[in-house]
Amino acid sequence: MVGATNQTLRPFLWRAGKLFPDREIVSRTAEGLERYTYSEYEGRVARLAGALSDAGIGDGDRVATFCWNHNRHFETYFGVPSMGAQLHTINPLLPDHHIQYIVENAADRIIFVDPSLAPKLAGAVDEDAFASVEQFVVMASEVPDDVGLSPVTDYESFIADSPDEYDWPDLPEDQPAGMCYTSGTTGEPKGVEYSQQMLWAHTMATLPKSGLDIGAEDVIMPVVPMFHVNAWGLPFSTTAAGAKHVYPGPSPTPEDLAKLIEEEGVTMTAGVPTVWLGLLDYLDEHDADISSLERIIIGGSAAPRSVIRRFDEEYDVDVLHAWGMTEMSPVGTVAHLKPGMEDLPAEEQYEKRAKQGLLAPGLEMRVVDDDGDEVPWNGEDFGELWVRGPWVTTEYFERPDANEEDYEGNWLKTGDVVTVDEDGYVQIVDRAKDVIKSGGEWISSVELENSIMAHDDVAEATVIGVPHERWQERPVAFIVPKAGADEAALKAELVALVEDEFPKWWAPDEVVFIEEVPKTATGKFDKKVLRDQYDDSSLIEGKTPDAEAPSDE
Amino acid sequence: MVGATNQTLRPFLWRAGKLFPDREIVSRTAEGLERYTYSEYEGRVARLAGALSDAGIGDGDRVATFCWNHNRHFETYFGVPSMGAQLHTINPLLPDHHIQYIVENAADRIIFVDPSLAPKLAGAVDEDAFASVEQFVVMASEVPDDVGLSPVTDYESFIADSPDEYDWPDLPEDQPAGMCYTSGTTGEPKGVEYSQQMLWAHTMATLPKSGLDIGAEDVIMPVVPMFHVNAWGLPFSTTAAGAKHVYPGPSPTPEDLAKLIEEEGVTMTAGVPTVWLGLLDYLDEHDADISSLERIIIGGSAAPRSVIRRFDEEYDVDVLHAWGMTEMSPVGTVAHLKPGMEDLPAEEQYEKRAKQGLLAPGLEMRVVDDDGDEVPWNGEDFGELWVRGPWVTTEYFERPDANEEDYEGNWLKTGDVVTVDEDGYVQIVDRAKDVIKSGGEWISSVELENSIMAHDDVAEATVIGVPHERWQERPVAFIVPKAGADEAALKAELVALVEDEFPKWWAPDEVVFIEEVPKTATGKFDKKVLRDQYDDSSLIEGKTPDAEAPSDE
Ligand SMILES: Nc1ncnc2c1ncn2[C@@H]1O[C@H](COP(=O)(O)OP(=O)(O)OP(=O)(O)O)[C@@H](O)[C@H]1O
Ligand SMILES: Nc1ncnc2c1ncn2[C@@H]1O[C@H](COP(=O)(O)OP(=O)(O)OP(=O)(O)O)[C@@H](O)[C@H]1O
Ligand SMILES: [Mg+2]
Ligand SMILES: [Mg+2]
Repeated sequence: MVGATNQTLRPFLWRAGKLFPDREIVSRTAEGLERYTYSEYEGRVARLAGALSDAGIGDGDRVATFCWNHNRHFETYFGVPSMGAQLHTINPLLPDHHIQYIVENAADRIIFVDPSLAPKLAGAVDEDAFASVEQFVVMASEVPDDVGLSPVTDYESFIADSPDEYDWPDLPEDQPAGMCYTSGTTGEPKGVEYSQQMLWAHTMATLPKSGLDIGAEDVIMPVVPMFHVNAWGLPFSTTAAGAKHVYPGPSPTPEDLAKLIEEEGVTMTAGVPTVWLGLLDYLDEHDADISSLERIIIGGSAAPRSVIRRFDEEYDVDVLHAWGMTEMSPVGTVAHLKPGMEDLPAEEQYEKRAKQGLLAPGLEMRVVDDDGDEVPWNGEDFGELWVRGPWVTTEYFERPDANEEDYEGNWLKTGDVVTVDEDGYVQIVDRAKDVIKSGGEWISSVELENSIMAHDDVAEATVIGVPHERWQERPVAFIVPKAGADEAALKAELVALVEDEFPKWWAPDEVVFIEEVPKTATGKFDKKVLRDQYDDSSLIEGKTPDAEAPSDE
Repeated sequence: MVGATNQTLRPFLWRAGKLFPDREIVSRTAEGLERYTYSEYEGRVARLAGALSDAGIGDGDRVATFCWNHNRHFETYFGVPSMGAQLHTINPLLPDHHIQYIVENAADRIIFVDPSLAPKLAGAVDEDAFASVEQFVVMASEVPDDVGLSPVTDYESFIADSPDEYDWPDLPEDQPAGMCYTSGTTGEPKGVEYSQQMLWAHTMATLPKSGLDIGAEDVIMPVVPMFHVNAWGLPFSTTAAGAKHVYPGPSPTPEDLAKLIEEEGVTMTAGVPTVWLGLLDYLDEHDADISSLERIIIGGSAAPRSVIRRFDEEYDVDVLHAWGMTEMSPVGTVAHLKPGMEDLPAEEQYEKRAKQGLLAPGLEMRVVDDDGDEVPWNGEDFGELWVRGPWVTTEYFERPDANEEDYEGNWLKTGDVVTVDEDGYVQIVDRAKDVIKSGGEWISSVELENSIMAHDDVAEATVIGVPHERWQERPVAFIVPKAGADEAALKAELVALVEDEFPKWWAPDEVVFIEEVPKTATGKFDKKVLRDQYDDSSLIEGKTPDAEAPSDE
């Protein structure tokens, strides 16, 4: 058979340990910074593997983490998969019933947990759901008092007796190496498994210029949690490149981030938009030298153009806007400029860079309308984005219903509604489940939200479609006003604002003032909750103006 | 089963055609430059696939090329493998009996041949060896008169009737996609097959900074022939990145290369050392603006430090020295500087960059002495380099004898003797078959050659070991003197020179003047020929000084 050695993570670990033995891994803890080298890291990973093996963990067993971003968590990233087990990263922000569902579904045998998160996990423990769990390991050198988890040990004791060499197995490429559940924004979280090969391919795809452009000289700080799709794969990519790691530890504040950038010389960091809004606010008020920073990867939700512009103009930092999914390991598109575009006027460059970007080499995509036809790439027509490729899973873990719904052959139907412009840049218009279908036309809830949130008196806003007999659905806006806002005046202004910018029939039929937009454990707007509350048309009874229907456009 | 879509070349083609439709592919021909876009390229590749299919070519069939570097040859790179067949690139510089052996061994069904190479191929045609060949296709829009190949058609007629869309199959990852024979430097050429997955993995490995650092803004000119391990994979990598291609066509002169760089804005090029020596000579005498050029990949044999220095100092061009093998698709190591090394004195930087470099992420290596033990990484001890990884083949085509000799488990024994320094840089000391074993110690024929070739009166030099009863082998130097050199004086000077630089017992026992060093079809010194001529010790009878034996060191 024509072929070569299997694609597994192990050679990345080997290379970093041997070619970059002195490069550092730095980790923020409650007590200050911890730091060690790849050479020590390699030894500790081997000890972890030995300890797991002694604990009876073998091929394909699931080992879970319930942790923030730090060096011990990073040790599980190579230790668990390279000894043949499967690393399941649990989002500790999930509600208890989701944690229970996930642990039971994955049948985790060991759970590594941060001291600060132990109470949360202890609260979620349920005898039935946790039946498979044989022990807890606290990520520290001792177990805190009254930890409420049993049997329990601390990480340093767990690995203490193992040698710092391990006889790593040659694993098959389809060996399950990782596991992560989707955020549950549109329904129950769905389990996604990553094979050794998928993680290998994703790592290789993130390194080049078309990906995140990572080299040995980089100092990389993933702010995106390591329980979110492996911190977007950065711990693997950073190791493959031989770059320096900086982990911001539990609940970092903007000040913590600014300090780490300055003190460790961070060149690249990554996280969701709110993190960077927070950092910009902090930098407005404080002196901090972030001049080492070259680029920030922003993804998870749309990067506002203003954030991209401010980092560029005020700090000479390139924002790389990226789109991805748990199902895609996760990186799918990155909004790089194409050759020649650096000569465009600044605002046009920002426009491109605020889109979700260009598909990475190795992937394929199509954008499909309701009839299953591909839509033209004109930046106007939209349809659902379908993707496939070597780091896109072809099925969910034990979810035949979701497989049925989300796949067409080997194409993953992303559930994201997008346009593609003439240059091939993807722009997410909405979620398929959030888009408002009115009179046979589509209204983008995301575009309405962006426009409304630009108003000075609005703190947060979300728009959902509520059922309507004649028009199927009509938009309703839910607004969190800023303190002291005049609600009646604001309502009128918002409707006027939307009517000014969009077709008249996009204007919400009702504006409801609320105290907070419900959010998922990932911090995304949880429209499910609002939709459940407003699942009949009573709210907009008699408010939908006949004459402004889409058919009149 | 946990997994994703297969790793195949097709998505690279799709992406370039769709995201970079206007980026160019430029090709030098006898009539001037031909140019078209990825969009046209994609259509022509589809037409080629359709034509192959009409010609009865199917899954796993072998289709050969006998061509220089140009756009039609590049069309076979994606067209042949993506429709399920296997592209076998033949080195047209091989002697006829090797061509016959290779065509028969591979059982090629169609051979694409350049008009200028048709006479050479016609001369090699042999009824038995070519029994599998059903037709020849000349890379032109008409068949030259008296081409001497039959049945024969021209390329444009061959693809004329096929549509520019093709229903590409979903191929398995282990589908044979490419095939190339080793250079035959140390014995009969050996067939290496590349699966879709290997070519995919190699392509991904060449893109990042740790590889060749290729981006969409690049303009890439492979001077290394497309019959040498797919021009080091550059046509695939360039496409994956969406970069511009420049193909230098048949037998380019230094002037042709300089012109192409200047006129097409080439940013990166690649080839064996002699090409760049030729370019430097040309640039010394002529005005040419090569300021667009950022880097040159040099490999195939060792890049002289002087070439690296001159390109850096005189033209601000970075030479990336790379080492590879046909068995490795081919890239294995690249001599990048590590973080911090830019601050070293220039000469120390050149020293690092003149080594073969750092292993690419994804591969593993070990360096093993005669007893099978790993040698320390100290830049002194040497042993044979073993490698393995996702783009290193695990077997030869139909050569159980070579498999037996060249593999240990899944490790490829490269046949290269190397040192590794403290920083992990590999340096090739010699071929295992060329290293001279004298008195239980090793003498590097390459180091002797380098030292001797530095003498002003030496045009070319090679050193081999000839059998010796007491010392097993002793070094003999074969010298091509420059015109007018005084041979007797030169001989004495050379021995003195070597004795000055190396242990005394490294000095050649005899210096033989010859007219030309025999070369392989790849242009490498063919020591086999000399060894066959001097396979007894008569040459050095009575010349080996007892007292200078290694044991006295
Ligand atoms: N740069 C981005 N801009 C806009 N949306 C993004 C971006 N990156 C990711 N997203 C959104 O996040 C989704 C992927 O998120 P994730 O996999 O964490 O779970 P989810 O889709 O939110 O939850 P679930 O699939 O369980 O409903 C994408 O499908 C897209 O809707
Ligand atoms: N940068 C380099 N410096 C020195 N030698 C190199 C370099 N790159 C490649 N080589 C030599 O070329 C070899 C690979 O060449 P190739 O695969 O074309 O066939 P070959 O080894 O010359 O022939 P055969 O295997 O048939 O004897 C390497 O094993 C190494 O000896
Ligand atoms: Mg989702
Ligand atoms: Mg060889």
